[in-house]
Amino acid sequence: MSLPRIAVDAMGGDEGVRVMIDGAAEARRRHDQFQFLLVGDETRIKAALDDHPNMRGASEILHCDDVVGGDELPTKALRRAKTTSMGLAVNAVKQGDAGAAVSAGNTGALMAMSKLALRTMPGIDRPALAALMPTLGDNDVIMLDLGANTEADARNLVQFAIMGAAYSKIVTERDLPRVRLLNIGTEENKGFDRLREAAEQLQDATGLDMSFEGYVESDKINRGEVDVVVTDGFSGNIALKAIEGTARFVTDLLRNAFTSSIRSKIGFLVSRPATELLKHHLDPNNHNGAVFLGLNGVVVKSHGSATAGGVANAVTVAARLLEEDLTQRISTGLAELHAREEATFDNSAAK
Amino acid sequence: MSLPRIAVDAMGGDEGVRVMIDGAAEARRRHDQFQFLLVGDETRIKAALDDHPNMRGASEILHCDDVVGGDELPTKALRRAKTTSMGLAVNAVKQGDAGAAVSAGNTGALMAMSKLALRTMPGIDRPALAALMPTLGDNDVIMLDLGANTEADARNLVQFAIMGAAYSKIVTERDLPRVRLLNIGTEENKGFDRLREAAEQLQDATGLDMSFEGYVESDKINRGEVDVVVTDGFSGNIALKAIEGTARFVTDLLRNAFTSSIRSKIGFLVSRPATELLKHHLDPNNHNGAVFLGLNGVVVKSHGSATAGGVANAVTVAARLLEEDLTQRISTGLAELHAREEATFDNSAAK
Repeated sequence: MSLPRIAVDAMGGDEGVRVMIDGAAEARRRHDQFQFLLVGDETRIKAALDDHPNMRGASEILHCDDVVGGDELPTKALRRAKTTSMGLAVNAVKQGDAGAAVSAGNTGALMAMSKLALRTMPGIDRPALAALMPTLGDNDVIMLDLGANTEADARNLVQFAIMGAAYSKIVTERDLPRVRLLNIGTEENKGFDRLREAAEQLQDATGLDMSFEGYVESDKINRGEVDVVVTDGFSGNIALKAIEGTARFVTDLLRNAFTSSIRSKIGFLVSRPATELLKHHLDPNNHNGAVFLGLNGVVVKSHGSATAGGVANAVTVAARLLEEDLTQRISTGLAELHAREEATFDNSAAK
Repeated sequence: MSLPRIAVDAMGGDEGVRVMIDGAAEARRRHDQFQFLLVGDETRIKAALDDHPNMRGASEILHCDDVVGGDELPTKALRRAKTTSMGLAVNAVKQGDAGAAVSAGNTGALMAMSKLALRTMPGIDRPALAALMPTLGDNDVIMLDLGANTEADARNLVQFAIMGAAYSKIVTERDLPRVRLLNIGTEENKGFDRLREAAEQLQDATGLDMSFEGYVESDKINRGEVDVVVTDGFSGNIALKAIEGTARFVTDLLRNAFTSSIRSKIGFLVSRPATELLKHHLDPNNHNGAVFLGLNGVVVKSHGSATAGGVANAVTVAARLLEEDLTQRISTGLAELHAREEATFDNSAAK
């Protein structure tokens, strides 16, 4: 099977060119059919490639000098879509030169460039940003939106649910991903009208490839009882960062506690395999790769501070979404929703 | 100094009468001037008091048979404000029979009863629910609102900031509590208009007893860099529960890791003092007592599953807020705000 190649913005992220190239090479060690279009400064990319003989014949370089700044306003970056490494990587997907793009650069700029170049899918009003998070269960949980849309109405939320379920089916291999709307209680009367409306629509939508199970509160996101958490970009961003911040807070407290006495230092050394397990489970690199859902093409955002292993995970997510044709799956989900809506309409009209 | 007594709803909470009475008794062991009005089933309260000779002469019982259910709708519970232990405890504050009320019952019902009996303070449009959370710094952080108001406009947020700062001054003893608005970025253009408006008003308000320092993202709440986090009830509830859930998630992972092998079990035993420190720091009982701010009277919500130690902490919070006259401090803060607004108005009019 031959996969379309993946465009990698080699210049984005806090760690520079080398970590992006090391990451691509690691992904190729895991999956030797991967092919790359590496976008950025040719001299630095070539220098980084010297360490990776496995990338020979598997990568082409697209040179450019311009880079989007980490703090740059998206509107400003957009003007340089045709000259920056980020813009060219996204554009390669538009032109069919690559099947997917991966960047560790400025999230807002990447979203803006991706929307402009790839356009929103038919049937989707607004794309959303989705990420994976660890759980106590067998698979990661997906949450969306995480900040692409500060607000979202009932219609947006229903579309997010369909997109999230399509993504979850691919990464978890669950037939019917368990989908819930984020709310501040599980009773029907909780939260906003838009949440109640979205819940009603999803409850009625029996033909969809998901199991809609009502509301979830933010203390239950990581229990392994839900596969897709649907919310607006403001609440999603608040929940995501609260989870990330608290995981760091607790591990910081643990480190302080373990170094507080000789006895606890010894205990720490003895139990190191256990704490390494914990570290591995919580390491953001193992859940790296946030996906822009709802575009005509696959764009994956790698965390700015990801390691080579993290970048390899983001590249693998991109490849998996291509291989399983995420965009087609979302279209099918939307068609099912619309078929149901029309049937409801016909029934009402017949009465 | 003689403090007004504290009304304790002995019937609320998951743990029953005994934990509430044990908690009151423990609070009195710490502060022997505390006096109580214990509201609920007389026979069970008397049985629980038998274990606590220190409560003799320090407590009066107000008998009633009726109890608010944990899942009861607030509107339904309100009709029984005059017959339930919760309603009578709050009413004792209204009548001047007690200075503050503590309950571990249904939060929505307690809020509704408190608003009806005590009314909102002059100058406050909507009361808010505030709680303490642990940090890496020297003191707890206060967050509000946590769900009393699903939505909040700029004016509400400014009032929440004033109420939160007054509360923080009492529990942290900081002269100028550091106040921030919860947002999904720290740049000026992030989030909603209402956040930008509230930020502008607080930035201009130089005479207030707080240091307003802009926005905070939810991954920075527990770093010890902020004393009061201000937000609407939906976002606040999402952030609070995400923090609580993740702290539990990480400690669950840690427990799993520590019991995964003989070696790590030994390591756990050796480092037990360290993990106990962690447990102590994160134990919700040590941060128990959410406060309804903005009412003509002090009402404290103890967590439904709090231990006697947790209840004692909630009682102590209530006593401390009475002693330091929280309500008066909020009035002063509001007067400062209004004085400033009028001065601004006079200046504008003079131009």
